[in-house]
Amino acid sequence: MRVLVLGGDGFCGWPTTLKLSKAGHDVHIIDNFSRRKIDKELNSNSLTDIASMSDRLQAAYDHDMKLHCADIDIAHNYSALKAYIKALRPHAIVHFAEQRSAPYSMISEIQRRYTVDNNVLSTHNVLNCILDIDPGIHLLHLGTMGVYGYSKDFGRIPEGYLNVKINSTEKDVDILYPTNPGSVYHMTKSLDQILFQFYNKNWGLKITDLHQGICWGTQTEETMLDDRLVNRFDYDGIYGTVLNRFISQAATGNNITVYGTGGQTRAFIHIQDTANCVRLALESPPKKDKVRIFNQVSEVRNVKELAMICSQKYGATIEYIDNPRKELKENKLEVDNAGLCSLGFDPIFLSEALIDDIKFIASNMKNNLDPDNILTSPKW
Amino acid sequence: MRVLVLGGDGFCGWPTTLKLSKAGHDVHIIDNFSRRKIDKELNSNSLTDIASMSDRLQAAYDHDMKLHCADIDIAHNYSALKAYIKALRPHAIVHFAEQRSAPYSMISEIQRRYTVDNNVLSTHNVLNCILDIDPGIHLLHLGTMGVYGYSKDFGRIPEGYLNVKINSTEKDVDILYPTNPGSVYHMTKSLDQILFQFYNKNWGLKITDLHQGICWGTQTEETMLDDRLVNRFDYDGIYGTVLNRFISQAATGNNITVYGTGGQTRAFIHIQDTANCVRLALESPPKKDKVRIFNQVSEVRNVKELAMICSQKYGATIEYIDNPRKELKENKLEVDNAGLCSLGFDPIFLSEALIDDIKFIASNMKNNLDPDNILTSPKW
Repeated sequence: MRVLVLGGDGFCGWPTTLKLSKAGHDVHIIDNFSRRKIDKELNSNSLTDIASMSDRLQAAYDHDMKLHCADIDIAHNYSALKAYIKALRPHAIVHFAEQRSAPYSMISEIQRRYTVDNNVLSTHNVLNCILDIDPGIHLLHLGTMGVYGYSKDFGRIPEGYLNVKINSTEKDVDILYPTNPGSVYHMTKSLDQILFQFYNKNWGLKITDLHQGICWGTQTEETMLDDRLVNRFDYDGIYGTVLNRFISQAATGNNITVYGTGGQTRAFIHIQDTANCVRLALESPPKKDKVRIFNQVSEVRNVKELAMICSQKYGATIEYIDNPRKELKENKLEVDNAGLCSLGFDPIFLSEALIDDIKFIASNMKNNLDPDNILTSPKW
Repeated sequence: MRVLVLGGDGFCGWPTTLKLSKAGHDVHIIDNFSRRKIDKELNSNSLTDIASMSDRLQAAYDHDMKLHCADIDIAHNYSALKAYIKALRPHAIVHFAEQRSAPYSMISEIQRRYTVDNNVLSTHNVLNCILDIDPGIHLLHLGTMGVYGYSKDFGRIPEGYLNVKINSTEKDVDILYPTNPGSVYHMTKSLDQILFQFYNKNWGLKITDLHQGICWGTQTEETMLDDRLVNRFDYDGIYGTVLNRFISQAATGNNITVYGTGGQTRAFIHIQDTANCVRLALESPPKKDKVRIFNQVSEVRNVKELAMICSQKYGATIEYIDNPRKELKENKLEVDNAGLCSLGFDPIFLSEALIDDIKFIASNMKNNLDPDNILTSPKW
């Protein structure tokens, strides 16, 4: 298939691009390199030395992957986006082009507003391009488990839709899961859901929303092919996801810093599985009767457990610090992921892959890790 | 109270501004006059001869209402908006500054994108100003009954929150009513709800969301004080609401054009009541534990009934035409409006006020009505 990956330079976008290309798809990237610019803004960096896009494309070419990349700000340059899609005529668009850090979205009004502007307008622009150019283009979007929130009352988290009885009429209906985001970033994915619901209902657009758990790890089969293909690895308090922060703390002899009690239970997925899941969803497009929502998760763990695993590996000390986030101290979590499993998803579990990742990171981090970047989360 | 009205030049904004001022509040307006610009874009016009803002302000002053107006695009000029609010320090902000026509929002990608950009960014900018300047400022926002949709399964429409049983856990919970908007415009009000939910949950902002029915009528006690204070009256297929379109068709000897079977049942409110309800909500601010949602409606009628009332008054013929909108042919509707009633809302009913409005409009329309503007709705 001809596939356009929006945000194909990012942490999830780049390995997914390579995976799709290696699987035989004709893959094109749009990225405005905002993530690299934010590194400069935050004085932060990837622990791995990521290559420039031109070097990435050359390396991909050297390994039989022909990729193309255009630099377009899809939230604010609609005409360029539309012209590109009109010329390319992709069968599917994979949309990763959103600001994806919850802490970043909570720093100040500047980041709150940037996150809403960028994420809502980029999603809405893509929907409008599809509607006007070819309503048959399948849109795959990276959502987040964070749209669900963590209410005890709602039970096991289903895939997007919740079965309820309306008490006033005693009717059973499936409703879009009542959203309860925990940050401005998560909120934008809740806004996306409403956009998808309407564009699907009114015009029948084919949309898959992948509510992903917390992504960890660095490398995939394809990014390991060449040093220039290496994926980014964020260890800082703003962009580093929890397990990646623990891995880098443990491997550098620092304390592992757990927010609050560590009783927060979350869903996790390895970056290799992210790329695999997108491929599976792409190759089995949905019907258009409603938005297809999958939970893109491999397993559920609580934060304390993760800290203990990393601590045991390296003998690092666990330090419990004030939680900068407004969230429940402890929660239970069960998540349905039957949709992707039915398409052939075979999850990589922490117990299998963690050691490889830690080794890889340990060998990369000597020069690049700046300890001042670890406890940088804003408080909210 | 010191009150800032955003969109204070519009159909709901202007009479509300006058009502609040006459009630003794210190009222300030921000408006970018987009509604007047859209008149030019659509080659449309108000049936009444509305005065310029400077003439409106002078006329208000002549009737003991001291108003001020600033021209700021609040969606795209955040720094000007913030500086204004910082200097003014209002106790409350009434937010009417959204593109409010469903048909307009469905014309093409230009209007779809304008409506989302303008409405989401303006609401989010206002929330950010309040959060950064003074989280105690009460935000009153004009929502729409259209966020609810018209499902039979959900019963009588409650005020914002729906009581359901989660079938997997058998727990009873109140959830934000599952939204089901019928146009891009209505969808933006559904997006606003998610913004309000999060900014209230995380920072305790005091927010009242007024889900208004279809507004009809022209004049209020205050707009009748002076010709220069007259409110706008839209009769066209894009901005004219259904009853106002019928009134102007009947009064000019044209056929009354009903979309589809006329079996659509909707909630209605007179413009005078809009202004009154906003005043009531303003003067009784909510607690901050959750977003306060009121249904701002006076009565429920079906479209056919309205057509017959207007037809009987003028002997006009009713003509049933293809419905340009995707909506149910027929629906039942019951709406709770206990919240505003508990604050003293005493609705004006169609049976009382319709004749006055028809007379007023008939005397105004001779020169201004362009018959080509009546059947201009896009199809969706």
